[in-house]
Amino acid sequence: MDVKTEIITIGNELITGLQVDTNGPYLAQRLFSRGISVQRMISVGDGVEAIAGALKDSIKRADLVIITGGLGSTRDDITTEVATNILKKKLVFSPETLDHINKILVSYNVPMTEGQKKQAYFPEGAEIIPNPKGTAAGFLIKEGKTLMAFFPGVPRELKTMFEETIMPRLENEWKRETYFQSRTLRLFGISESKADDLLKDILENQKEITLAFLPIFPETNVRITIQKKDNEEACARLAYWEKKIRERLEHHVFGTDDDTMEEVVGNLLRKARATIAVAESCTGGLIGHRLTNIPGSSDYLERVVVVYSNQAKIDLLKVPEEVIRTHGAVSEITAKLMAEGIRNSAGTTLGLATTGIAGPAGGRPDKPVGTVFISLTDGKETSTKEYHLPGDRQQIKWMTSAVALNQVRRYILTKKNS
Amino acid sequence: MDVKTEIITIGNELITGLQVDTNGPYLAQRLFSRGISVQRMISVGDGVEAIAGALKDSIKRADLVIITGGLGSTRDDITTEVATNILKKKLVFSPETLDHINKILVSYNVPMTEGQKKQAYFPEGAEIIPNPKGTAAGFLIKEGKTLMAFFPGVPRELKTMFEETIMPRLENEWKRETYFQSRTLRLFGISESKADDLLKDILENQKEITLAFLPIFPETNVRITIQKKDNEEACARLAYWEKKIRERLEHHVFGTDDDTMEEVVGNLLRKARATIAVAESCTGGLIGHRLTNIPGSSDYLERVVVVYSNQAKIDLLKVPEEVIRTHGAVSEITAKLMAEGIRNSAGTTLGLATTGIAGPAGGRPDKPVGTVFISLTDGKETSTKEYHLPGDRQQIKWMTSAVALNQVRRYILTKKNS
Repeated sequence: MDVKTEIITIGNELITGLQVDTNGPYLAQRLFSRGISVQRMISVGDGVEAIAGALKDSIKRADLVIITGGLGSTRDDITTEVATNILKKKLVFSPETLDHINKILVSYNVPMTEGQKKQAYFPEGAEIIPNPKGTAAGFLIKEGKTLMAFFPGVPRELKTMFEETIMPRLENEWKRETYFQSRTLRLFGISESKADDLLKDILENQKEITLAFLPIFPETNVRITIQKKDNEEACARLAYWEKKIRERLEHHVFGTDDDTMEEVVGNLLRKARATIAVAESCTGGLIGHRLTNIPGSSDYLERVVVVYSNQAKIDLLKVPEEVIRTHGAVSEITAKLMAEGIRNSAGTTLGLATTGIAGPAGGRPDKPVGTVFISLTDGKETSTKEYHLPGDRQQIKWMTSAVALNQVRRYILTKKNS
Repeated sequence: MDVKTEIITIGNELITGLQVDTNGPYLAQRLFSRGISVQRMISVGDGVEAIAGALKDSIKRADLVIITGGLGSTRDDITTEVATNILKKKLVFSPETLDHINKILVSYNVPMTEGQKKQAYFPEGAEIIPNPKGTAAGFLIKEGKTLMAFFPGVPRELKTMFEETIMPRLENEWKRETYFQSRTLRLFGISESKADDLLKDILENQKEITLAFLPIFPETNVRITIQKKDNEEACARLAYWEKKIRERLEHHVFGTDDDTMEEVVGNLLRKARATIAVAESCTGGLIGHRLTNIPGSSDYLERVVVVYSNQAKIDLLKVPEEVIRTHGAVSEITAKLMAEGIRNSAGTTLGLATTGIAGPAGGRPDKPVGTVFISLTDGKETSTKEYHLPGDRQQIKWMTSAVALNQVRRYILTKKNS
């Protein structure tokens, strides 16, 4: 059965452009993974007419309507009330929900407000969806053939609740006809059109897979999607195509699906039983931040120093003052000495360093904004490279951190294979 | 005149969740700045029925419909064709547009494809919107009272074309009756419902402003919006309300509109002619990353050390090994000595330190995941506080960095006023 599905996201912050909606895309992606294509995604503001209009329209068209937002405790949270009215139901009180709200508030040590009491009311006949992470419970309710599912707009609350209620229900309520499988290859150091060129001839005469390029700065993602009547066949053919595509893109593929560069680098360091210390100048702590986002990173990350002043480069990395004076803080030799200095002081397998001009000020004709040196040393060899990166301050920081982490990745992989 | 406006964004990548729509929010924000509230934002896929359905529905409801996507050169770009059909028009050829397409392709040194020729056709009677940056021209066409504006989905092309055609036209086509003004107050350290409670009595009996709460982890934003026939009056009354609301929310307001905590802290440090050095453990470089996102941060940020190992705490901050052994790396005394150690070694006005358990591993009954110590010293006094923060690893890192930066902000403000 083809499940006609629509998503309605509610909030003035959406229709005034104050916030980009990420709930809609999340829900669409999860539904798509189960073979359900969303027909429409609609955003409306917090007004009674806007919400009522969108709900009524979607009920007419869809079998499944997922609604997020407007279940909070403040005055402008009116989704439950509006839905109850258009369904011509009464609001009924849920003592269990009030209990739960109370427990959450007690754990935060805050008293209950009037608005929070409102969150314990639902349209008559609704099935309440508990919210383990917050005070805004959701609910399911049917109108004719249409199932409506209401969720709070807070992404982490929505996700848990959606995964636990709608995803399992999809299997039971609507029997599937086709199986989708998809894999995203995450690429670094190659442009979308270059990747497209490399794959052109193997893709031209096939209709089995669809390929979507999605540049997410500073990476390029390629999503392979396949649709089959049989799930095992879908998996097997996806694996076939993934292999074929990977062979063409070679080392540019650093991971798949939810992999991040810092996670991939962390796993490689752990497997190689290597440790690392980082001396950051222009990246200002971003490499440390990214590496430490990964649980267990203390296994391989010994320390990071952000040597923003010249004195810090001298004190912490033993870069001679003379070198900085003669060649500048942004130079090949300073980068090299920073990498070697941090490795020596930390006693790690590897030392990584960045120095550059992130701008907007500080550029000079011979060293314009975007000039960056990245150096990696293992104590025997030190490799230092110069880059000229485009973009604003934050883009230069991000690109530098990515190039630096990718340099560590390539070093370990090359070492392993040599 | 109240201009009923809707935005339709077209593309399979949107309704499969592969890409988050940023065109809709951009357009909504620009329109809102001119006093036009978008009523609905709709995303549909590349199918004939989906596009036709969305266009027909919006024509019924709206005075202005802005459509993006589906004007490209590939097979799935069918927006022009579908629009032409539902308007019962013919497609007509534009030689000027073909010339422009040709010039663009020659500059890229690529031959013209059949699909690109299609981009020179428009519905009869349409006003063509040239695309200086690409091959996909847009167009304007009226159906009854509804003006429809079609743009390509590539953000940088859309933006230029929208700014040059729609923005000036808004002034001419629809005489404005009201002026919107809005201000976002950025809050830290107060929940949405607490803020709502503090403001309840001053908001209850007024209809002049609307307030929207927008929690953006780890902050809470409050947007005040006002609408008046006279722009000066709108500005004056907004200022009145902003002052009134600020008085209630006190020091919880750290900034307005696009301000960030790191920018606010940076400006305060600069004005106070103070410098800072940071010793990060659980935040892993995030405080350094945030501070260095601000241009000119080298004026006040001297250095950051991420002391992930105990040895690094001993080497770089002179925290006695004995202290770490007895009290642990996550303890009040270690945090204090870290702050004092980094200040001493860097010779800065302030020393800031974080140490904590970001998880998911490393928690113990007496020090569960989320236990964090933050210490700030000026050499005379050191203030160290213990926190128990909820959330996952990344949330704990972000909240810790925000609490730490806020502590610096409060220190400087209190000092200034004493």
